Amino acid sequence: MKKENYKIALDVMGGDFAPINEIQGAIEANENIQSNIDLEITFVGKEQKILSALRQFETHKLNYNILNANEVITMSDDPTTAFKKKKDSSLYKGVEMHANGYVDAFVSAGNTGAMLSISTLLLGRLKGVSRPTIASFFPTEKDQPTLVLDVGANIDCKPKFLFEFAVMGSIYASNILGLENPKVGLLNIGEEDSKGTEVILDTHKMLKNSNLNFIGNIEGRDILQGTADVVVCDGFTGNIILKFAESFVGFLRSNIKAFAKKSVFNSLAVMPVVPIMKKIFNQFDYQAQGGVPLLGVNGNVIIGHGKSTPLAIRNMIFRGMDLIKTDINNKIELALNPDYVTENNKVK
Amino acid sequence: MKKENYKIALDVMGGDFAPINEIQGAIEANENIQSNIDLEITFVGKEQKILSALRQFETHKLNYNILNANEVITMSDDPTTAFKKKKDSSLYKGVEMHANGYVDAFVSAGNTGAMLSISTLLLGRLKGVSRPTIASFFPTEKDQPTLVLDVGANIDCKPKFLFEFAVMGSIYASNILGLENPKVGLLNIGEEDSKGTEVILDTHKMLKNSNLNFIGNIEGRDILQGTADVVVCDGFTGNIILKFAESFVGFLRSNIKAFAKKSVFNSLAVMPVVPIMKKIFNQFDYQAQGGVPLLGVNGNVIIGHGKSTPLAIRNMIFRGMDLIKTDINNKIELALNPDYVTENNKVK
Repeated sequence: MKKENYKIALDVMGGDFAPINEIQGAIEANENIQSNIDLEITFVGKEQKILSALRQFETHKLNYNILNANEVITMSDDPTTAFKKKKDSSLYKGVEMHANGYVDAFVSAGNTGAMLSISTLLLGRLKGVSRPTIASFFPTEKDQPTLVLDVGANIDCKPKFLFEFAVMGSIYASNILGLENPKVGLLNIGEEDSKGTEVILDTHKMLKNSNLNFIGNIEGRDILQGTADVVVCDGFTGNIILKFAESFVGFLRSNIKAFAKKSVFNSLAVMPVVPIMKKIFNQFDYQAQGGVPLLGVNGNVIIGHGKSTPLAIRNMIFRGMDLIKTDINNKIELALNPDYVTENNKVK
Repeated sequence: MKKENYKIALDVMGGDFAPINEIQGAIEANENIQSNIDLEITFVGKEQKILSALRQFETHKLNYNILNANEVITMSDDPTTAFKKKKDSSLYKGVEMHANGYVDAFVSAGNTGAMLSISTLLLGRLKGVSRPTIASFFPTEKDQPTLVLDVGANIDCKPKFLFEFAVMGSIYASNILGLENPKVGLLNIGEEDSKGTEVILDTHKMLKNSNLNFIGNIEGRDILQGTADVVVCDGFTGNIILKFAESFVGFLRSNIKAFAKKSVFNSLAVMPVVPIMKKIFNQFDYQAQGGVPLLGVNGNVIIGHGKSTPLAIRNMIFRGMDLIKTDINNKIELALNPDYVTENNKVK
């Protein structure tokens, strides 16, 4: 088997349970890779904290480095200020290390807005990309999830941006889910071509004239029904739906509790329900998904949930490896710049 | 007890199972009202069909009239064309009858877009209302539902429109749920005052300066968590969330089925789950809610789901009676025109 090598920088100060969860996640990732894979992790953060945390684990199998960063960007930090003022933060230094070519990917469970702006500024955008975007998988009634983008990076979108999201989402879904020609749907309030805002109407035309597998407008119900493989929307709508969907589990849990409380009979009847619901709702769990990719920047960046568990961190590292392995970025540039392809299939 | 009298026009051609479900719903409504209430229903639709359907029911207790209408506005009819060309339709004639003061409310399970435009054009808007809006209740983790508006009537909204939705929603929630000072939240992608589009930022300022019980920005997860009693958003976002939420039951059902199929053990384990889930998800059922009000028109209009069952129709009629009884429209005009109130508490 061909030897594969992956160098990943991991922000160990990002999450709410840093740096323990991050380090444990990295160890678990390393334990679960194939034997032909060399994984090299660079922990980015306060060196003393990292060293002290590392003592709690069995690390001799792990190939790791430490990059010291004295500052931490918190969840409440303003992205622009963080970029300007916290250049010695784990997030900034991790992205910078990636931008300078020392690692192939950067993974963090930190401040999403800061990840977005610092990655865009330090890594730059891919040729042909107006706005980097954050994409997230939703579970569906079918066997595979559907990719929704944008889920919060861009609240005001021009048709061109939405079109580019469609291209990036299509390439990502195709590579991650192994789909030959992913079905792309435009999220709208009706299926008819004439529905929607001016921006949606213009985006519809662009998608219709493209060589994407565009299936037309889709509605809110189509996301969970899995009508499309890729759902395109602006970041305002996408973010609200994402958070609405995440709240289903809690809603269901509290309703099951309320039902159980009504009578002894109910409380007994409800007992077998909970484990089954847990299995089903595992799909909505951000841990299984790990993190979401930041598509459109000239690098491989995975953003995780602030509450990321070791399992989530492990899966975020795997997602980062997917980005590297499938060479997504070159494919995006090829698709968005059809006239600029050189002979060796790279963009000029 | 004081005698109460309600005259309601019911479009019997609107739903997918017309006119049987409509007539049965009216009979069930009549059977479930208090003894001090006089309910008078006017069935609007093809007279021969109504007469033939009425023969299938015991109707001697029902106080009803028939208004013949030869045409039907279908679900695929364009609202503007329907308004211009189908003046002999049940929907048009029912609204017209209400506009002319023969009935106190109009109820239909027909084409929502046509209901919206025909009602707005024939009934007119309330003083101070820029755009009539459709409001829908969502279940929450708490004991009471939350009212979301707009859910599809207005896809492009100015801050003024959203502000008026907040006023109308607050009055509706207060009267229907019996809340003294409903908490109003502005749906956004973050809680901070600085988040959101220009429209959202301006709306935020208007709401903050109003005498509404404005609790600030809320996120997608806050809807089901019941953080606010009234959730304000544009009709694009609201419609997508409404349809997304409606698809949740089907998603859960198909996942439970898939889980059951995996093994005999699973299929046995799942058996007690289904009835409990049904009870919990009854809350998401449009039948229990009946219909949604069209707020802001100078009349009482309830819009139902095309698939409305007799139970849904019954509850739509009750919703129409609520609108009449609580005198919502006068309260909305009073709130939106504080300088124009006359001594008898009516708007000039």
